[in-house]
Amino acid sequence: SVNPDLASERQTASFSVEKLTAWLDGGAEHTRMRRAVVEAIERDPVFSRENQYFQSQNERYEAAVRKAVHLQKKMHEMGWNENGPEFKYIYRAVSGDIAFLLHRVFMRSISVLGSDKQIAKWMPLATQYQLIGSYAQTELGHGTYLQGLETTAVFDITTQEFILNTPKISAMKWWPGDMGRSATHTVVFAQLYVHEKCYGVHPFIVQIRSLQDHSLCPGITAGDIGPKMNFEHIDNGYLMLQNVRVPRENMLNKFCEVQPDGTYVRWGSQKINYFTMTTVRISLISDEVLIPLMKACTIAIRYSAVRRQSKLKPGEQEAKILDYQTQQEKLLPQLAAAYAFHLTNDYLQELFKKGYSEIQKNNFDRLPELHALSSGFKATITQYCTAAVEICLRACGGHGYSLLSGLPSLYTKILASCIYEGENTILLLQTARFLIKCFMAASAGQPVPPSVTYLAAVKPGKCPAKNKLDFLSPDIYTEAYQHMAFRLISSTAAKLQDLIQSGVKKHDAWNQCTVQLVQAAKAHCHYITVKNFAETVEKLETKAGIQKIMKHLCDLFALHGIFSNTGVFLHDGYISGAQMDMVTASYLDLLAVIRKDAVPLVDAFDFTDKNLNSALGSYDGQVYQRLYEWAQKSPTNKQMSPAYERYLKPLLHNTLSKL
Amino acid sequence: SVNPDLASERQTASFSVEKLTAWLDGGAEHTRMRRAVVEAIERDPVFSRENQYFQSQNERYEAAVRKAVHLQKKMHEMGWNENGPEFKYIYRAVSGDIAFLLHRVFMRSISVLGSDKQIAKWMPLATQYQLIGSYAQTELGHGTYLQGLETTAVFDITTQEFILNTPKISAMKWWPGDMGRSATHTVVFAQLYVHEKCYGVHPFIVQIRSLQDHSLCPGITAGDIGPKMNFEHIDNGYLMLQNVRVPRENMLNKFCEVQPDGTYVRWGSQKINYFTMTTVRISLISDEVLIPLMKACTIAIRYSAVRRQSKLKPGEQEAKILDYQTQQEKLLPQLAAAYAFHLTNDYLQELFKKGYSEIQKNNFDRLPELHALSSGFKATITQYCTAAVEICLRACGGHGYSLLSGLPSLYTKILASCIYEGENTILLLQTARFLIKCFMAASAGQPVPPSVTYLAAVKPGKCPAKNKLDFLSPDIYTEAYQHMAFRLISSTAAKLQDLIQSGVKKHDAWNQCTVQLVQAAKAHCHYITVKNFAETVEKLETKAGIQKIMKHLCDLFALHGIFSNTGVFLHDGYISGAQMDMVTASYLDLLAVIRKDAVPLVDAFDFTDKNLNSALGSYDGQVYQRLYEWAQKSPTNKQMSPAYERYLKPLLHNTLSKL
Repeated sequence: SVNPDLASERQTASFSVEKLTAWLDGGAEHTRMRRAVVEAIERDPVFSRENQYFQSQNERYEAAVRKAVHLQKKMHEMGWNENGPEFKYIYRAVSGDIAFLLHRVFMRSISVLGSDKQIAKWMPLATQYQLIGSYAQTELGHGTYLQGLETTAVFDITTQEFILNTPKISAMKWWPGDMGRSATHTVVFAQLYVHEKCYGVHPFIVQIRSLQDHSLCPGITAGDIGPKMNFEHIDNGYLMLQNVRVPRENMLNKFCEVQPDGTYVRWGSQKINYFTMTTVRISLISDEVLIPLMKACTIAIRYSAVRRQSKLKPGEQEAKILDYQTQQEKLLPQLAAAYAFHLTNDYLQELFKKGYSEIQKNNFDRLPELHALSSGFKATITQYCTAAVEICLRACGGHGYSLLSGLPSLYTKILASCIYEGENTILLLQTARFLIKCFMAASAGQPVPPSVTYLAAVKPGKCPAKNKLDFLSPDIYTEAYQHMAFRLISSTAAKLQDLIQSGVKKHDAWNQCTVQLVQAAKAHCHYITVKNFAETVEKLETKAGIQKIMKHLCDLFALHGIFSNTGVFLHDGYISGAQMDMVTASYLDLLAVIRKDAVPLVDAFDFTDKNLNSALGSYDGQVYQRLYEWAQKSPTNKQMSPAYERYLKPLLHNTLSKL
Repeated sequence: SVNPDLASERQTASFSVEKLTAWLDGGAEHTRMRRAVVEAIERDPVFSRENQYFQSQNERYEAAVRKAVHLQKKMHEMGWNENGPEFKYIYRAVSGDIAFLLHRVFMRSISVLGSDKQIAKWMPLATQYQLIGSYAQTELGHGTYLQGLETTAVFDITTQEFILNTPKISAMKWWPGDMGRSATHTVVFAQLYVHEKCYGVHPFIVQIRSLQDHSLCPGITAGDIGPKMNFEHIDNGYLMLQNVRVPRENMLNKFCEVQPDGTYVRWGSQKINYFTMTTVRISLISDEVLIPLMKACTIAIRYSAVRRQSKLKPGEQEAKILDYQTQQEKLLPQLAAAYAFHLTNDYLQELFKKGYSEIQKNNFDRLPELHALSSGFKATITQYCTAAVEICLRACGGHGYSLLSGLPSLYTKILASCIYEGENTILLLQTARFLIKCFMAASAGQPVPPSVTYLAAVKPGKCPAKNKLDFLSPDIYTEAYQHMAFRLISSTAAKLQDLIQSGVKKHDAWNQCTVQLVQAAKAHCHYITVKNFAETVEKLETKAGIQKIMKHLCDLFALHGIFSNTGVFLHDGYISGAQMDMVTASYLDLLAVIRKDAVPLVDAFDFTDKNLNSALGSYDGQVYQRLYEWAQKSPTNKQMSPAYERYLKPLLHNTLSKL
């Protein structure tokens, strides 16, 4: 039975939820495939996440291994494969809660960085799980700056082997997933030395555990790095190497090789490899960032339609908290952001598909742009969505703080996305470097890549809006974002030049501008997101009410961005104080409009109850019943605590002193 | 041995760390007392938090009970008592990681709400731990809005008892600490009914567990609510009551009573009671909010002085990450905030001391102001500091994400302070209500309380700053904050009046203004914080370099606030775009200045390594060694996982199908 407070929300939807779901999935046939996968996974008790919130790190790890192993069987049974269209739905259905994800990265490394011979040797072993792979790059003292890695691989010409060492504690490999307890092999990134000359960082396949009894190989020290904010199911590991020898053939040598006599040879272009690293940043957006945000919105919005607290009008019953303007202002912009970034993701996927086909024709011209966009969007989307999930969590008050709401684990997991695959600040500065370069080129009349052509256009004038309705025009707000991004980029470029012209050294000048460079990079990505949202909405078919509601969400996303960052629009008077009051008025009006469709808009994300795994967010909205039932399953309720006999009883019976 | 990168930071301190510590403590004699308490606690192995990050919820609970019981003994031994000056240092030394905190609230409830007779009966039992108390107010479906509580207490004239019931699942008591597993008694808040007439919410002492064997009393269902984001050591509980009878004397009756014939009598003023609730919000700021922030700053800043990553200048060694402007911009404003709010806390404590002495003279005039300030500051400080701790965590990259850094638990714990003792949005709206009222009064020429006299002054004109150095003048920035707060309050008051005059009902108009009312309330608190910081700095003695560094921090706090909220200052042109560029320049200059003293500034907080309990933040800065040592203690490293024999081995040996 559905909570009537939730049921009533669904009766007045202004659009077809099923149609919106199909559109989000990229077509009804995808929706059907997704549902079939989800059903097959959720029907299978091995994949249950029912007790997840009660499990220890050890239990979570074991469950993840069990699921990963079972998944092999399941995929065979269902006729799915790792490169098939179903795989992303499988990952979504198990909420990423499986082991051996790094095994996939191990395989990708070999297929991208290995020679045909290496691929022929290692890929069958990996595919058949005759080994379990990992990927050992990050060190205890070194992350982002790869050139700083301290692990060494010295070529020994007499034995035709590389001798690998982690010479200092800071050189210890730290963080690699699947390595703490599972992996038998890993790809170790180390500084290559031949005849005492350093050739920089290269990848080496190293066996770390016996294939017979899983004991550590000679010279290997490895283990689990211990508790983290989340990812309890993953055995992130450490690895020390002491004179570990691997044959010459174990250096992945698609692009370069150490020949038997010690000659170092490099060939081909590694650019395609950079492209691969770039695509990883894009590929994580959907699974690791957007889905968690969509789940958080679903949980918080359904709960807000069911939770009643305090009175809006004297004499009436307590109001749904979703009816409070402050609650709408917390949640609805996050919902709009989920849709906005879903479309940004589509845009990036499309861009990368095109980029890839160009690259296959050996045209690498768009690589800098793709790198800048992937860095900037990885950083802005992870940052925005992490903040958004936290807002959803806080908006649910005390119940949001319970693990049973599902929100804490969504938050602690999405938070990691700000750090892995490139720390966000570093990434934004890479985007900024590209933008400054393009701005200089544009100023000098040179051609610039498509996404930054606006940098070539002069932007004088003021925002032409005359009343609050004008701010519901995509042209008006997209123009405002463009102006703002242009101003931040150009003024930072000017500061940088001024500093250099006044005699400050280039790298010092750069450091003194980095706070503003980060702002500029974010502004660029924000502009592109708004522009893409507006353009997509315009192209939408008008039937089924989808275009209308998407237009509202696009307006909300754009105006929320202005409302939350008024200063950057007011700074040069492009938007005046009086116009900003219009923005605020339109923005607050929109909250009330979208509030009416809030529940249908999260229903369209189409999460099953099992997948949400939230006592607050289930489809039926039976929040209190579920919290109570779940709490009773907690191990803290399963036994009389030994604390009673040991401490409480002697305390209460005043016999402590006798113990 | 201290990491040389950290040692070098200490050699150039511009002030005496020991003098600053004494000033923070409120005098050198307090520092001595604090250190003595800390030493006694930390020498005692029972209070060790060494394994905290590895423990399950059950283990944490048991340890908290063990510590609480042991603390009784320790206090007796040391001659400390719960109302003595040492108690706050004890709480700090154990990091709040003990049981029976709600027992204290139980006692305070009785002493504040109980009659002399009730106090005489219950207080000795509680003091001697012949019972363990809790405090059952919040319900599964009801938090902030006390009038909505659903638990009932019906007076049965024939037996002279109250019959308590939780008639629906949403009426179940939910969250009370110490109640899930420990408490024998609790104070239940319930709607009082006599002769079918409801008299509103009243407190009742109810026994829930047997004093003999700790079994639940008849009619009682109780247990633990399960896993939360933090507070694993606390047995937050649920409680259902089915026809539970307590004698008439168990209703706490200092202010009102049900007489034997069912007559309801009320006497005296409950205002003093409101005052007590108000002081709780203030009292949590220091222990639950500022200390966690100070710890987070200590950890993140020490780590940033030791962690080297990438190169600032070509050819040099990798740079300390604290030398990057972006890292300074993350951390140093949080450090400034810790000092700013420390002083706000002093200001509030002083105000409440004065308020209390007035109230004891039966002068309740300042109560509304105190209530508004305690609500507003509880909300703004908890919100600001929670965000600040999160920034510290993220600024430490991957290592900040490890529980061993100490940062995740600081974050997940401080986050709760945004929710408990009044949800922040609700509290800010109470402050806003007071501000609007005062603004109206001031506009009508009526007197207003001291903290809001600025609302009476007309504020025309523009910011007079002419260059970036002018923005280092406290008069300039304090005036800007005042202007901004005044504008937000007055414009929201105007909107509210316009709506009402245009025919919108009062409560609807209020709801339509709440987003802006929240902004106005925050602006007021921000202004008071800046003003108080500036005034305190001015009064500081100039020796030992303390005034100078505090002036820098005050400037940084103020300019960071403008830099991060440029829009509200630019909106009406009070600060121009050109002036905002000066703010930015001064702000960024200050980062480089304060960076030089960053490590001494956190050293002054004077946390011991045991108290910090962080692999990143120890005094000696031996980060990597400690992370490795601690990881080895993790239970995930203590055993070969059963997952190997069960899943990995059959997988690798291709014998899965045979299982």
